[in-house]
Amino acid sequence: MKISKVIEGDYFHTPSAHTLDYGHALFALDEFGTIVKMIRQEESSFDELKREWFAEAEQTVVVPKGRFLFPGLIDLHVHAPQWPQAGIALDEPLEVWLDQCTFPLEAKYADVDFAKEVYTDLVTNLLSRGTTTVLYFATVHKESSILLGTLCGELGQRALVGKVVMDHPDTTPETYRDINAKQALADTEAFIKAVRELDYPQGIYPVITPRFVPSCSDEVLAGLGKLAEKYQVHVQSHCSESQWEHEHVYERFGKRDTQVLADFGLLTRKSIMAHGNFLTPEDGEIFHDHGASVAHCPISNAYFANSVLPVKRLQKQGVTVGLGTDISGGFSPSLYENIRQVVMSSRMLEEGVDANKPLAKRGGLADSRVSLVEAFYLATTASGQALDLNIGCFQEGFSFDAQVIDPNHAQNRLPHFAFQQPEEIFSRIVYLADQSNIRQVFVQGKLVHEKQGEK
Amino acid sequence: MKISKVIEGDYFHTPSAHTLDYGHALFALDEFGTIVKMIRQEESSFDELKREWFAEAEQTVVVPKGRFLFPGLIDLHVHAPQWPQAGIALDEPLEVWLDQCTFPLEAKYADVDFAKEVYTDLVTNLLSRGTTTVLYFATVHKESSILLGTLCGELGQRALVGKVVMDHPDTTPETYRDINAKQALADTEAFIKAVRELDYPQGIYPVITPRFVPSCSDEVLAGLGKLAEKYQVHVQSHCSESQWEHEHVYERFGKRDTQVLADFGLLTRKSIMAHGNFLTPEDGEIFHDHGASVAHCPISNAYFANSVLPVKRLQKQGVTVGLGTDISGGFSPSLYENIRQVVMSSRMLEEGVDANKPLAKRGGLADSRVSLVEAFYLATTASGQALDLNIGCFQEGFSFDAQVIDPNHAQNRLPHFAFQQPEEIFSRIVYLADQSNIRQVFVQGKLVHEKQGEK
Ligand SMILES: [Zn+2]
Ligand SMILES: [Zn+2]
Repeated sequence: MKISKVIEGDYFHTPSAHTLDYGHALFALDEFGTIVKMIRQEESSFDELKREWFAEAEQTVVVPKGRFLFPGLIDLHVHAPQWPQAGIALDEPLEVWLDQCTFPLEAKYADVDFAKEVYTDLVTNLLSRGTTTVLYFATVHKESSILLGTLCGELGQRALVGKVVMDHPDTTPETYRDINAKQALADTEAFIKAVRELDYPQGIYPVITPRFVPSCSDEVLAGLGKLAEKYQVHVQSHCSESQWEHEHVYERFGKRDTQVLADFGLLTRKSIMAHGNFLTPEDGEIFHDHGASVAHCPISNAYFANSVLPVKRLQKQGVTVGLGTDISGGFSPSLYENIRQVVMSSRMLEEGVDANKPLAKRGGLADSRVSLVEAFYLATTASGQALDLNIGCFQEGFSFDAQVIDPNHAQNRLPHFAFQQPEEIFSRIVYLADQSNIRQVFVQGKLVHEKQGEK
Repeated sequence: MKISKVIEGDYFHTPSAHTLDYGHALFALDEFGTIVKMIRQEESSFDELKREWFAEAEQTVVVPKGRFLFPGLIDLHVHAPQWPQAGIALDEPLEVWLDQCTFPLEAKYADVDFAKEVYTDLVTNLLSRGTTTVLYFATVHKESSILLGTLCGELGQRALVGKVVMDHPDTTPETYRDINAKQALADTEAFIKAVRELDYPQGIYPVITPRFVPSCSDEVLAGLGKLAEKYQVHVQSHCSESQWEHEHVYERFGKRDTQVLADFGLLTRKSIMAHGNFLTPEDGEIFHDHGASVAHCPISNAYFANSVLPVKRLQKQGVTVGLGTDISGGFSPSLYENIRQVVMSSRMLEEGVDANKPLAKRGGLADSRVSLVEAFYLATTASGQALDLNIGCFQEGFSFDAQVIDPNHAQNRLPHFAFQQPEEIFSRIVYLADQSNIRQVFVQGKLVHEKQGEK
C-alpha cells in the first residue's frame, strides 16, 4: 500500500443516522485521494504508524488544535443557472415564479460565456461553504451543461450534472424548451457521452434530468427511462413538491407523481427526487422498493411546497433522505443554513403552527422532529448514500472530502466561554459557523479552497 | 441650526409596514447625532445644500457607489448572560433547558469579571452584525447588570437593560434567585437609579424585568408594577410563550398571562413582551388597549414555543410587533437570520405543515404570510415604535443609526448577474448578506464598528 498523503487532526462526523462520532485521527490517503487507512489516537498502533506514514507520505497536513475536520457537505439539489436570482422574487407562487423569472433567466444560458461567468462564481462559492459534492440541474442547453461539468472538474468539486429536459408545449415557454422529444433524447444521449469523457479524479457524472413531469411529454419521459436503463446513470427530477404539481400530475395521468416516474423507468437506486413533500405512505413504499432517494430542501419548501417534508416517516419506510439547497427556490447557498432549517421545520411539523387551535387540531404530525445531529447526517452520509458514492463520512474506502473548521476566525468568532464538551462544540459550530469559519476545503484529498491570505 | 456631520449615500429603509423606500440622500446631523435634515437627490435644493453642508460640517462621510445605507437593526429580546450557550442544548423542552442549562449559567454572573468578558464579546458581536439597539435581559445580579449598561455605553450601542427579577421558590433554583420579594424590589429600584445616571449620547435605559410570571411571587409582581408607575421606565418579560407557560399561569391565577401582567400594572406603552405565541384575540385587545408590544422571536419559537406567532393578526388588532433574536433560546445573534425566519415561519403558519392531511385539516391560519419587506420593518421601524424611541428608519428627528452594506465584500460576494432593480438588490441583501458585508456601523451618528483593516 503506497501512502501518498497523511492528514492528522480532530474530527467530527455522523457515520449513522443518530450517531455523532469524534476523536483525533490519522488519515492515510492513496494517490487518488481515497482513505486507505484511518487510525484513531486511542489505538495502540497510532504512534508507530504516525512515524511511519509521516516519513513515507509525499504530503502531510496537520490540523492545528482548536480546528476541526468536518466531512465535506453534499448538496443534492442545485439549479446552477438560477444563482443570479438567489434571494429574489420569493413572494410569488411556484408557477408564476417559473414562468416570469426562472425560465427567462435559464434561457440565457444558450450563451456559454454567460454560463461560464455564472457557473464559475457559483462553484467557487459553494466550495468556500464546504460543499464538496453537488447534484446540479443545468439548463436545456447541451453545450453550457457540459461546460458546467468541466468547470466543476477544473475547480475541484465533485459534481453530478444534468442537461435539463422539458419539451411539453403546454407548460414550457416557446423561448425556452427542447425543440421536440426526439431532439431532447438525442441531446441527452450526447450529453451523457460527453460528460463520461471528462476525466477528473473526484468524478464528474452525467445525470438524466427531466425537469418535472408537468414539463415533459410522455414520449420524452419514456425515452429518458430507456436511457437510464441503457447507461445506468443517475436520474434526478422534482417529485410531489407542491399542491399544484400534485394535482396537475394526477389530472393528466390519473395517478400520482411517484407512480408515473416509476412506470417510465425513472425511479432507480440512482434516482434522487427533489422535495417529495406530498409523498403518501404508498409513495414512500414505491421509493423504497426502487431504492430511490429524496432530496429534502427545507428552505425552498417554506416558499413553494405548502408543507414540511415528513423526513422521519420516510426514513422509517426505508427511504434515504438527503439534503439540498435548491438554489434558487431556496435563497441560501449554505447547507449549514439548510441543516438548521431542517431542525426548525421539523419542530413545526411535529407540533403544528397555530396556537389558538386546540392541540388536537393544530395539524402536527407526531414523532417528526429531527435533531441537529440527524440533520447533519442528511447533508453528509445520507446524501452520499443517495448518490450511491463512497462519500459523506470518514471511513476507509471513502474519498477524503473535508472542511477544516476554525471556530475562532476573526470574522466570526464563536462564543468560547464554557461548554467545551465535544457534542457542545459540534452543536455550536453547526448552528453558528458560516463561510468565515471554513479555513480549507479538500475534495478527494486535494486542497480546493483556502481562505485568502491565511493558512 | 448647527450641522455637525453630513452623510451622503444610497439608502434603503421601511418607513411603514409595507413600504420599501430607497434613494440617494444627504443626512445632516446635529452634534448629538440626530438627523436634523434629510434631502433626497431629486429635491431641487440638493446641490446647493450639499455644497453648503459639506463646507460647514466638521465631518463628512460619503458612502461609495455600490454600497448602501441600511437602518441599524433593533433587537427586542436578548438574554446577554446566555451568549456562552448559543447553539447548545436546543433539543430540550423549555423547563428542562432552563433548570439544567440556563439557570446554572446565569448564576455565574455573580462574578463581574466573567460578566465583563462575556458581555464585551456579545455587544461587540451584535454591533458587527448591524444591531444598533438592544433590549437586554441581564441576570438577577445588580452589579453585573449595571455593568452591562456601562459596557454598551462605552462600546457605543444603544441599550435598554434589565436586572432580572425571579423570586418564586417553586420555580427557581435555590442557587439562582432573588433572596425575597423585598430585596428584589430594592435592588430593582437601586438598579433603575444607577442606570439613569449613566451618561451616553445614544442612551442607556433601565428596564423593569420580571423573568416571567411563573418565576415571580405575587408580591414582587405587584411591587414591580408600582415601580413601573413611579419611574415610568420600560418593562419587559415573557408572555404566553409556550404550552407549558400558558397552562401553568392559568392554573395559578385562573386567568391568562396577559391579564395577570395587566392587573399587576406591567402592561404599559413602554412594555415589550417576548414571544406571545399563545395570545388569544382577547389578549391582543388588552395589548392594544395598553399600548404594549410583542417581541417576535421566530428562531427561538421553533424550539420552545410549540407554534408560530400570528404576526398579521396582532398587527390587525393594532399591536406593535417587533423582532428579537432571543439569544440563546434562539441560536443566532443575527437579526438578518431572524428576518428570514419570520418570512419562512409565516408561510408555514398560513399553509399548515402536513401535506398528507387534506388542505382544510392542515391547521393553517389564512392571511398569515409576512413578506421580506414587512419582516425587515419588524426589525427596524416597528421595533423602534415598540421601544417608544425615535429610531428604526431615516427620518428627521430620528437618531442616525445605520449600517453600510457592501454586497461585494470578498468574504461573501453576493451574486451580481442581472436583477439590479432596487427591490431586487434589497431582497438579495436581506436574504444573503452576513456580517462580512457590514462595512461600518453608526449609532447616534458615531462610527462604532468598522471591518478590520478596511475602509
Ligand atoms: Zn428544484
Ligand atoms: Zn427570553
